[in-house]
Amino acid sequence: MFAITVPAPGGAEALELTAVPDPVHGPDEVLIDIVAAGVNRADVVQRQGHYPPPPGAPAYLGLEVSGRIAAIGSQVSGWAVGDEVCALLSGGGYAQRVAVPAGQLLPVPAGVSLVEAAALPEVACTVWSNVFMSAALQPGQWLLVHGGSSGIGTMAIQLARAIGAHVAVTAGSPEKLAVCHELGAEVLVNYRSEDFVAAVRAATAQRGGRSGPGADVILDNMGAVYLARNVEALAAYGRLVVIGLQGGTRGELDLGLLLRKRAAIIATSLRARPAAEKAAIVAAVREHVWPLVAAGDVRPVVHARFPLAEAGQAHRLLESSAHIGKILLTV
Amino acid sequence: MFAITVPAPGGAEALELTAVPDPVHGPDEVLIDIVAAGVNRADVVQRQGHYPPPPGAPAYLGLEVSGRIAAIGSQVSGWAVGDEVCALLSGGGYAQRVAVPAGQLLPVPAGVSLVEAAALPEVACTVWSNVFMSAALQPGQWLLVHGGSSGIGTMAIQLARAIGAHVAVTAGSPEKLAVCHELGAEVLVNYRSEDFVAAVRAATAQRGGRSGPGADVILDNMGAVYLARNVEALAAYGRLVVIGLQGGTRGELDLGLLLRKRAAIIATSLRARPAAEKAAIVAAVREHVWPLVAAGDVRPVVHARFPLAEAGQAHRLLESSAHIGKILLTV
Repeated sequence: MFAITVPAPGGAEALELTAVPDPVHGPDEVLIDIVAAGVNRADVVQRQGHYPPPPGAPAYLGLEVSGRIAAIGSQVSGWAVGDEVCALLSGGGYAQRVAVPAGQLLPVPAGVSLVEAAALPEVACTVWSNVFMSAALQPGQWLLVHGGSSGIGTMAIQLARAIGAHVAVTAGSPEKLAVCHELGAEVLVNYRSEDFVAAVRAATAQRGGRSGPGADVILDNMGAVYLARNVEALAAYGRLVVIGLQGGTRGELDLGLLLRKRAAIIATSLRARPAAEKAAIVAAVREHVWPLVAAGDVRPVVHARFPLAEAGQAHRLLESSAHIGKILLTV
Repeated sequence: MFAITVPAPGGAEALELTAVPDPVHGPDEVLIDIVAAGVNRADVVQRQGHYPPPPGAPAYLGLEVSGRIAAIGSQVSGWAVGDEVCALLSGGGYAQRVAVPAGQLLPVPAGVSLVEAAALPEVACTVWSNVFMSAALQPGQWLLVHGGSSGIGTMAIQLARAIGAHVAVTAGSPEKLAVCHELGAEVLVNYRSEDFVAAVRAATAQRGGRSGPGADVILDNMGAVYLARNVEALAAYGRLVVIGLQGGTRGELDLGLLLRKRAAIIATSLRARPAAEKAAIVAAVREHVWPLVAAGDVRPVVHARFPLAEAGQAHRLLESSAHIGKILLTV
């Protein structure tokens, strides 16, 4: 088969379409004929040589795909050859075929095309596992999403609104904020000109009760550069969930402020988790998120599609941050 | 009645036994004739003027007492005048009488004297709410307790061992470590001469599974000065619970390391929580901890008793850190 490889780490030009051996599926895996693959920021970091695949993962880029089942392992039940599926991967999505543990498969939800379905697994699993499973966002609470117009952001806004929570977002342009608003975000902060701490505290200042002003949950992709301000923006009992480090890794933490708020900082990544945990997350997404997608309350937001051979163009677009929502590769 | 007051913040000499108005109990409170009061580090900080009582709390020092019920509010049921009780307070324990919400009362556990019972509420509620309710320590997991010979430490060791967890402690002398060992601690680190990160990682290195070497839960009273090393000492999925800031408030946090471990930092305090939450914690302690005390698996560790009028001496001892376990005032 063909896959995108990275002969030497570097810029977008480092991506090459190359003939490689076909993947072989194990007894608890299925083989997927890939129709589309999602592009994620982690792929860029891996391309740059800073995010090697975890042990046992396919060597190629790509953390999510959609496609049709081509073959089924001897211990797999509940799926048939030809089924239209999407899947959360540990790698290997930028290719014609991939082998994936059956626990990481999801059916294509009703009302979503087979291509668009590739935009769902990574963002749905990331948002559900972090915002809902780890940080336990509740109806009526406030979620602050940094990068509200990203793939993760557009999913987080919709899911939070679907369960009855309130949403504030940051983004870098009026156009991006308008999309966030359309998806349900109620407080829109242009981080280039406004202070998100002041905006979130002002928007939530009317609340009484035990939490006081601030966000109950913050979903953060910036890391160190936002750490102090994120803690300031938390409500009492707030949970800061760090899932990206685009703004650096080491920052000063005011434990006194965290303690006065009785708050928590959680940092997680999805890719490095063992297969059993990924399967548990995927099962939870199928139970809680898929019905919302089928009902039309949550939809994939796809900005652009590129043929697999043009993966470099897709990476350039992602790195420009000019996109809104997801970028897909079609195979 | 008489109570210890602090006419002007300062050293142990600032404490004065003074005639003050009797407390008046509300409809959901009981009045306690105090027999003994626990001395806590928070009392020292309040004496120094840095930890004012939360709104509505009694002005005097003291976060826990034992004694006999003297009067009962009109809306209180389940308790009778004369009952021997202990109680978690928001303040006011260094006195002859105190009014306390009925939800913060506990019976004196079987096998514990009325005086010794004053050593239990604060440490039992702090350890149970943090180590078990927030950080969810499980049987077979490792707990690292800093200051293992403190009142909090001696309770944390015993409770963790009683539920089948493993315990590592830090303390500042062989004598303190010997007491921790007697209470069940398996890994003993003299922080004056040893590196707790290396010791904990070495002791837990044999573990396979998803957690790898390190502590699953760390109960920390040092704050900033231990922050970086605590994160290093965490296992994958570990939870660092900061309940004291004796080593400062602001420290550098490596979010990248936290993320790779998929770990969390929780900072909490008990005193500032609303009464409803205190009541929930007290109810959980009565359900989960009191049977272990009655069975003899967990016991109060009392280092010294002082008459109420000698509260200054009690504070000097606490500040010397020469004690092991709790210091009590008798009334």
